Amino acid sequence: MGDNTLRFGLLGCIRFASKFVRTVTQSSNAVIIAISDPSIETANTFAAANNLSPETVSVYGSYEELLNDPRVDAVYLTMPVTQRAKWAVTAAEKKKHLLVEKPPAQNAAEIDKIVEACESNGVQFMDGTIWLHHKRTVNIRETMFDSGLLGDIRHMYSTMTTLVPEQVLERLTKEAMGLAGAIGELGWYPIGAALWAMSYQMPVSVKALPSSVATNSVGTILSCSASLQFGSTETATAIVHCSFLSQLSTDLAISGSKGSTHMNDYVIPYKEDTAWFEYTSGAKFAEMHIGWNMMPERVTVDCSGTEESQEATMLREFVRLVQGIKRGDSEADPRWQEISKKTQLVVDAVKKSVDIGCEVVYL
Amino acid sequence: MGDNTLRFGLLGCIRFASKFVRTVTQSSNAVIIAISDPSIETANTFAAANNLSPETVSVYGSYEELLNDPRVDAVYLTMPVTQRAKWAVTAAEKKKHLLVEKPPAQNAAEIDKIVEACESNGVQFMDGTIWLHHKRTVNIRETMFDSGLLGDIRHMYSTMTTLVPEQVLERLTKEAMGLAGAIGELGWYPIGAALWAMSYQMPVSVKALPSSVATNSVGTILSCSASLQFGSTETATAIVHCSFLSQLSTDLAISGSKGSTHMNDYVIPYKEDTAWFEYTSGAKFAEMHIGWNMMPERVTVDCSGTEESQEATMLREFVRLVQGIKRGDSEADPRWQEISKKTQLVVDAVKKSVDIGCEVVYL
Repeated sequence: MGDNTLRFGLLGCIRFASKFVRTVTQSSNAVIIAISDPSIETANTFAAANNLSPETVSVYGSYEELLNDPRVDAVYLTMPVTQRAKWAVTAAEKKKHLLVEKPPAQNAAEIDKIVEACESNGVQFMDGTIWLHHKRTVNIRETMFDSGLLGDIRHMYSTMTTLVPEQVLERLTKEAMGLAGAIGELGWYPIGAALWAMSYQMPVSVKALPSSVATNSVGTILSCSASLQFGSTETATAIVHCSFLSQLSTDLAISGSKGSTHMNDYVIPYKEDTAWFEYTSGAKFAEMHIGWNMMPERVTVDCSGTEESQEATMLREFVRLVQGIKRGDSEADPRWQEISKKTQLVVDAVKKSVDIGCEVVYL
Repeated sequence: MGDNTLRFGLLGCIRFASKFVRTVTQSSNAVIIAISDPSIETANTFAAANNLSPETVSVYGSYEELLNDPRVDAVYLTMPVTQRAKWAVTAAEKKKHLLVEKPPAQNAAEIDKIVEACESNGVQFMDGTIWLHHKRTVNIRETMFDSGLLGDIRHMYSTMTTLVPEQVLERLTKEAMGLAGAIGELGWYPIGAALWAMSYQMPVSVKALPSSVATNSVGTILSCSASLQFGSTETATAIVHCSFLSQLSTDLAISGSKGSTHMNDYVIPYKEDTAWFEYTSGAKFAEMHIGWNMMPERVTVDCSGTEESQEATMLREFVRLVQGIKRGDSEADPRWQEISKKTQLVVDAVKKSVDIGCEVVYL
């Protein structure tokens, strides 16, 4: 382990954290040195399942113990969303850099507290929205946006749906899911996608669509669509949709004045080693309307190297930022906390629109 | 020309009607025997451009003359939408079977008048929504809906956008476009697609999305999104979007409890000789969320035969119905007028929602 190697601790040992362990294990400049869970059994089981040897990885039965381990540089938080803000703040106060699963908090006020703690303690913050780090995401911006092939964005459609078995739907409580329910847990992605496409210009207003809101018997939002309006003169509209009642879908369609682009797997690509998007630019119906004047172009991005997955590129960026801070070369980069905050502000606004009977909420 | 050959006359010689001429010319049981336009020059130019010989095709400078030609069995109407209902009724009274470009009228009341005239005179009605006749449309219904692969429909997204140059936008008057503007001219397709997916169950309510409505200086609607709510207990929602301000897009995404399906060229396939749709059923993220448990399946439909295009299959169906009536074997099939009427009712409801400040309109 070189001096540059970033030493991670896990706050929370849910099964999904295995992916992060795998990514760190495959990386050349990060390592897991500690894991923790309020249940020591859960932590031990996780260690065994993920081949984390007790000789190199400390296993703690509480988050506090891990945060008191001075060897830990950075933490990856995966505990339930209702506890994330509290532990993120505590971790920042212990000078740990923070990689927090999305959504990082239950509302924007909680994110403000995390950001404040990070800034006071000089630590880096990043949430775990991996697709923003995919090579494809970078490629599509260059290919469609920067080049002008898309033109002005007019309309966007973005989804994140995943089917939860009926008998489990009732167990999706606000304690488990956070106050925003599906809007926070799933809507985070389509809302973030719309913001990403608009280069983080904020919408002027949002509105939940009344017919789209479903809740379970304890009031947790299970399904919701909303429209987001961007700009005042030249307007762009985004429709975002999230649901626990439909099969997996992760569509992102962006329609512009000059072109359009589609991905149906923007959150997690179908395959880890390759991903693509399709686009047309200057498309019209052909003479006599018997077809189009072009076929969609498919741009394929190769991610077959072990450090080319979206998890690996996210980790690499996080490590790069933290190493800069550790060397004293740079301060924490505020870009990632700003993205989290803006995404959460729109999540909150959609949630508020649902709460007030699907009226318009201005931002 | 056999006894079974259906003899067509054209009411209107717009350039787009060339496609219909081509389809009839390629068919084995229909023929163009007359064309008409209020401008005889337009009609003559059209005849020359489409190789319609004066020896076999009569060229009339008025619709009346064509309708008084007793040799004409059926007419294809392409004059501006504001005149379609009037001439459709007149043609039906002259016992001509009717193939009317979409939208066939400006509102549902006009469609009622057409239907009444057709029923009184025993003639067949069909509007020119070609994609409903594509082999792919039949295939997707069998593959996804009838088989259960899709499950219950939860959410749909459908568009029809096409870019009109800025200097032309102001010329889109209500006289040229009809009262519903883009909602009638373009929205007809996504609204029809949602109804088709729901097997023509009507929505219980519709709502235009305030942020999405754009008009030109003379009040013609240029762009609009709307949500359609189907069902009362198990709800399905459709988002429909139409615009003259974006590049060509014709997306149809249907998200169900068990599967989902996508086409980005449902109105007119990219190519005439082949078309496809993609679907997943039972899709989930793979273990550790590093990909999906499956890739989308692509179903390709071969249309390479000269009578396999969507125009040819529409014509074949129309000819089949008319021949049945002519032989005295059957009466006019009400299915197509019902589809037109239902589509128009929803177009009207979206238009009404725009007119009343994007409030909910119940159907």
